Amino acid sequence: MTTVGVLGGGQLGRLLALAGYPLGLRFRFLDPAADAPAGHVADHIFAPYDEEHLARFAADVDVVTYEFENVPAGAAAFLARRVPVYPPPRALEVTQDRLEEKLFLRHLQIPTAEFAALDDTWGSVFEALERLALPVVMKRRRLGYDGGGQRLLRTMAEVEAAWVALGSSPAVLEGLVGFTRELSLIAVRGRDGDVGYYPLVENRHVDGILRHSLAPAPNVEPRLQAEAEDYAARVLTTLGYVGVLTVEFFERDGRLLVNELAPRVHNSGHWTIEGAATSQFENHLRAILGLPLGSTLPVGCSAMVNLIGTLPDPQPILRLPDTHLHLYGKAPRRGRKLGHVTARVAAPGLLEERVRVLQHLIGEPDGTGTGLAHLNRV
Amino acid sequence: MTTVGVLGGGQLGRLLALAGYPLGLRFRFLDPAADAPAGHVADHIFAPYDEEHLARFAADVDVVTYEFENVPAGAAAFLARRVPVYPPPRALEVTQDRLEEKLFLRHLQIPTAEFAALDDTWGSVFEALERLALPVVMKRRRLGYDGGGQRLLRTMAEVEAAWVALGSSPAVLEGLVGFTRELSLIAVRGRDGDVGYYPLVENRHVDGILRHSLAPAPNVEPRLQAEAEDYAARVLTTLGYVGVLTVEFFERDGRLLVNELAPRVHNSGHWTIEGAATSQFENHLRAILGLPLGSTLPVGCSAMVNLIGTLPDPQPILRLPDTHLHLYGKAPRRGRKLGHVTARVAAPGLLEERVRVLQHLIGEPDGTGTGLAHLNRV
Repeated sequence: MTTVGVLGGGQLGRLLALAGYPLGLRFRFLDPAADAPAGHVADHIFAPYDEEHLARFAADVDVVTYEFENVPAGAAAFLARRVPVYPPPRALEVTQDRLEEKLFLRHLQIPTAEFAALDDTWGSVFEALERLALPVVMKRRRLGYDGGGQRLLRTMAEVEAAWVALGSSPAVLEGLVGFTRELSLIAVRGRDGDVGYYPLVENRHVDGILRHSLAPAPNVEPRLQAEAEDYAARVLTTLGYVGVLTVEFFERDGRLLVNELAPRVHNSGHWTIEGAATSQFENHLRAILGLPLGSTLPVGCSAMVNLIGTLPDPQPILRLPDTHLHLYGKAPRRGRKLGHVTARVAAPGLLEERVRVLQHLIGEPDGTGTGLAHLNRV
Repeated sequence: MTTVGVLGGGQLGRLLALAGYPLGLRFRFLDPAADAPAGHVADHIFAPYDEEHLARFAADVDVVTYEFENVPAGAAAFLARRVPVYPPPRALEVTQDRLEEKLFLRHLQIPTAEFAALDDTWGSVFEALERLALPVVMKRRRLGYDGGGQRLLRTMAEVEAAWVALGSSPAVLEGLVGFTRELSLIAVRGRDGDVGYYPLVENRHVDGILRHSLAPAPNVEPRLQAEAEDYAARVLTTLGYVGVLTVEFFERDGRLLVNELAPRVHNSGHWTIEGAATSQFENHLRAILGLPLGSTLPVGCSAMVNLIGTLPDPQPILRLPDTHLHLYGKAPRRGRKLGHVTARVAAPGLLEERVRVLQHLIGEPDGTGTGLAHLNRV
């Protein structure tokens, strides 16, 4: 019986376990939060990521993975000396630091927003602004998640205030990208180097939090999908990556810029549970266990809507055809992802209507996520 | 947070929990076996069905259901005085006793095999054989499961030996039904009386154990489906049933005879996880929780093959298109159901070929389940 150890016990971990049980796997989660959602469905070691607990954790599991990218890189490296860890800890190091990530992408000749590193001197800000025109986005280099740690700055006064608020945290400044829409690609690479790509997904954010995904993204030419896969392939190969990798893109003038990388299963891939031949969760597990990857082909068209902050009445949602409710067992709290709903339809033209029906049922104002996504996002 | 209490912690319970987590449910299983498969994925109270443990169990859950029909009826009745129990304990009483079940079906004018009750006198056997011609099947009235507790008897000498072996256990004698094939219907009834029926499934048994199911069963005329639904409806309504009910049929001369009832989710409904809009497990939970039932429409055609006794190499199975492995986390043992595989195909004509491929991969001899199913079964 193979036991998978997971660092982090949030909903992504919970969904991993639910996908892994049919493969006969056992799961053990290490998470310092007492009420981790994965703890309802699997063993949960409620402990900090210190060496004593990590050593004990490593002894009890056959392979380790993680469900969020802010796992201390030292913890992953410590575990990797005792038990296989996938994705490789190097992927954590690159993606935990927005500057490292941008430099890594530049090295691979993958387009991103213009950026400049800030140190703790005003001079570095000034120098950056010689290259980047206002408005700009100031981002902390570390611990960004769901739009946290970033501010849109329109004026020099705002820049100065943000820089003061930053204290001496390392940061980057990014040029604002005028984009048509946000897309993401869920990619997976097996231990044998085999790779799979799901179709590009269209994502809509509000306040930096994903609200809706349409999958496959409507109006994607094969050339755009190929471009996305090419960029993902460079990242996967360079890192010797194993598992699911998510690449978030901006689409601008029919081309892609990488916004960020997530070395894990991703909210914009939840639709794959019902909407693809094999879910991102099952494929991540297949990858890290050295099993053959499953087909990434879509099954129909899917609209995924997040349930944020409050829990809707499940009754009308459960009455909709081919509509699947996923709750994470979390207590309601403002801005918290409590679950999601995936509705499958036969054709892309039906997706928007289904999103509107779901928005109505979950009490989301009309037009949410359909406006200026980027300005909302930063 | 609703907690569902389940009596029995086998694979059916495990699959119920995996279907219920996305609905935000918690699960607690009561099972006297230490290694109950549901215990890997949920809380497992490892205790006997005595009043002390039942009372404590009732206090911790919001609703109770069961995943096997040999739950002591007294235990269900004890619980029903403290917490809602679905399906109703009366369904357990009827289905636990083969004679009660047959009399109940006769009362509802639902055709079955010819039968006669035996008491502990040889005279009752003799009397039965005046009505039923040899060969006959002798079945214990209680604790039958997977073909256990039944014997096919061809001669008077076999009858006598079987009767002696029976001791004084109550039993029934049944006429042997010459049938074309075995079918089953998974039905579900909600707390509001709403009902749903999945399409009839064709089942093949060996030694009383289900080996393969084809769903929807090929070559089923609408009239046959209607007949099955009519019989199921009589049972559901009469029992005030809530939850999933399985009706096993023999098909003979284009008509149906009921073989037996199972007041629970069923192995011949496992295909619904991938092969139907809503799985039997999710619909059972929706029913007992008073949620709207989900669609029972099939999605493509499914072949379900049980993994019995030994675990196959998962690699070639996972390479097949639209093929889904489900392991129960059980240690291999002769005759034990360790998991199942469901393969989805686009048309019924492709089902047999897919079954043959799976048989080959799991090391099952060709022709298993395609021979004299009934003679194998008894």
